[in-house]
Amino acid sequence: MMTMLLDECKKLKMASKKLAIANSKEKNQALREVIISIKEDTDYILEENAKDVKTARESGMKESLIDRLMLNKQRIDGIIESIENIIEARDPVWRSNDVWTMENGLVISKMTVPIGVIGIIYESRPNVTVDAFALTLKSGNCVLLRGSSNSLNSNRALVRAIKKGLKNSTISEDVIGFIDDEDRQIVREMLTCNEYIDLIIPRGGKNLINMVVQNATVPTIETGEGNCHTYVDSSADLKKAVDIIENAKVQRPGVCNACETLLVHEDIAKDLLPMVVDRIGKLVEFRGCQRTQEIIDVKPATEEDWAEEYLDYILAIKIVKSTREAIDHINKYGTQHSEAILTEDITSAKLFRREVDAAAVYVNASTRFTDGGEFGFGGEMGISTQKMHARGPMGLNELVTVKYTIAGDGHIRG
Amino acid sequence: MMTMLLDECKKLKMASKKLAIANSKEKNQALREVIISIKEDTDYILEENAKDVKTARESGMKESLIDRLMLNKQRIDGIIESIENIIEARDPVWRSNDVWTMENGLVISKMTVPIGVIGIIYESRPNVTVDAFALTLKSGNCVLLRGSSNSLNSNRALVRAIKKGLKNSTISEDVIGFIDDEDRQIVREMLTCNEYIDLIIPRGGKNLINMVVQNATVPTIETGEGNCHTYVDSSADLKKAVDIIENAKVQRPGVCNACETLLVHEDIAKDLLPMVVDRIGKLVEFRGCQRTQEIIDVKPATEEDWAEEYLDYILAIKIVKSTREAIDHINKYGTQHSEAILTEDITSAKLFRREVDAAAVYVNASTRFTDGGEFGFGGEMGISTQKMHARGPMGLNELVTVKYTIAGDGHIRG
Repeated sequence: MMTMLLDECKKLKMASKKLAIANSKEKNQALREVIISIKEDTDYILEENAKDVKTARESGMKESLIDRLMLNKQRIDGIIESIENIIEARDPVWRSNDVWTMENGLVISKMTVPIGVIGIIYESRPNVTVDAFALTLKSGNCVLLRGSSNSLNSNRALVRAIKKGLKNSTISEDVIGFIDDEDRQIVREMLTCNEYIDLIIPRGGKNLINMVVQNATVPTIETGEGNCHTYVDSSADLKKAVDIIENAKVQRPGVCNACETLLVHEDIAKDLLPMVVDRIGKLVEFRGCQRTQEIIDVKPATEEDWAEEYLDYILAIKIVKSTREAIDHINKYGTQHSEAILTEDITSAKLFRREVDAAAVYVNASTRFTDGGEFGFGGEMGISTQKMHARGPMGLNELVTVKYTIAGDGHIRG
Repeated sequence: MMTMLLDECKKLKMASKKLAIANSKEKNQALREVIISIKEDTDYILEENAKDVKTARESGMKESLIDRLMLNKQRIDGIIESIENIIEARDPVWRSNDVWTMENGLVISKMTVPIGVIGIIYESRPNVTVDAFALTLKSGNCVLLRGSSNSLNSNRALVRAIKKGLKNSTISEDVIGFIDDEDRQIVREMLTCNEYIDLIIPRGGKNLINMVVQNATVPTIETGEGNCHTYVDSSADLKKAVDIIENAKVQRPGVCNACETLLVHEDIAKDLLPMVVDRIGKLVEFRGCQRTQEIIDVKPATEEDWAEEYLDYILAIKIVKSTREAIDHINKYGTQHSEAILTEDITSAKLFRREVDAAAVYVNASTRFTDGGEFGFGGEMGISTQKMHARGPMGLNELVTVKYTIAGDGHIRG
């Protein structure tokens, strides 16, 4: 293993033992020091971020992705607010809602404990650097960060501020590790570093996630790929539907919970589709199925469109005959992230809610709500799109594992 | 992929969609039919098992492992009782203990849902075949079984009985798949079959688990390797201690929660060790550290002994200076399975309980209790020794994942 990675790992492993049993007061005080430090360093962080944005723009990055990369005073305030929320949140460590007594008198307590060292491999969003740190710290875990080369300057500046803050606290600055190197080989090594890393969370697009899944021997939680659908049932309130479609598609098209395909029940397609064009047609490119093409002026959609996560001002549209057909389409092409039905019919809502296989299933709301903040988790580590350990937004409660403690009085098994 | 595996996988995937939404009544009725069928087939199952036991004995398998392989009328009764417990247990699907309403009125429900298709790769115990089937069925999951070649005849007979039972129920016999082939290449293919298998659980020794972890791209839960310790503190009640050590070591030495190393506080070593020799010295071979060798007549322990899971009538013994030293030894050599402290001192108990990093930590009880049945789970799928998704005995509640359902009324994100 590369010396730099090995050194970081050893420091993290060592620091994780102390951090696992640190109390809430110590952890919250450390987070407060980090806020002070980020405030002090704001100008420096923005300067470094501007370098990254400049390079990205010169390399021709899409504006929706540059939006994800860019920091400004307001977004720094958002980052700080996020840490404040995490300070306010309940410490997830050494809690239980499950203690029971067996017939023989053994008292079994299912207690939460930190996972250990968590590696994060993420793409351009620099706010992830701080969110990941604050969430792992509060949950008693050390974190090893490997950001994208696009945001290397921003991340370096943020990590510098975090470590500076920790130095004023009782928590070791070694609880955060940062891979300040663009070499991709390091990522491969992280993925097989079972001795030091307990969990790896990739945050990013399909290619990153596939690479991680194919190569990791460390347990992983896949996050973020979102080919999300909004299905408008025949009984839907069309005015609300247009509001929701607009919100799901254009409020922030570069994020994973944005809507990529609109499914429309055939009975209301002629009414709804022109309303959608009126509302967002100037911003959004539509790609429609054969029947959609007969109603509005759209490019034809290909088979690839149904599976694509555009992360852009593009919307695929398909007309379906029933809620059943909508569910089958979603279960075939979706990425099990966030799916919505807009309906006034209780039977359709029930069927969709039960049978769509996804982390978050909405009835009459925008898929944009799939987010740790919007769910009241005080932040998130990513949105799990797989089924192990955590599914959906991963907040503090998803960053712990359990330990059963069993109290006896000389008990032996019969 | 081999045709046989692909065929099984396709049938399982198809069956899993229906099973996921089957109700408890249907699932319990199917389990009752399976009980009837196993009762009918008991003689045949025992005949087939006798073939496996004969072959194993001829090949020189250790008696403690043959004990794991062998079935008899009593153990068939145990298997049936296990299914009955699972019928009695609460259906873990589509439940929630977490529903909340956000300020904006969105109602978020964190619901349990089945995982999908679960692959089990397991060593000699044939009761696992039935336990795994019954637990996965009740939790709405399909199961693909790959047993050891040592128990191929037993498993084939059990799966035949299960499928016969299912034919008399409304649940498809395709919910259980069985790899009736000793070819090891099939295991490799299972491990990368992400399209059809959602989770793989290896149950067995170190080599099996390592092979799975190194080669799987499907998420896995490691189970079973248990290098378990019993630490006797200076304040321990020595009479209770000897009872617990006997139980943890010799009641069933071939299983993962048996004690492999005894740690003894130096202050009571001279009193305790002769008592241990008196109680189990005829059955058990001891391997001791230097200081142990000065008190009782034992073979010297080597560095390897501290790390070894004997699964046999062998016990390593080490004298330590403090609870702290015991904890450090356990966290260095243990497999994070089950660890016990025997003490009357509240501070030692607290320290041990909090700082030992393991799935199950005992105070004044035998490590042998780490078991789904003993924890009241009505059966188990194995004992997870890793930290993701589940840790410790995996019962019905560990075989589900979650789906957030969100009910709105035209909600859009601001």
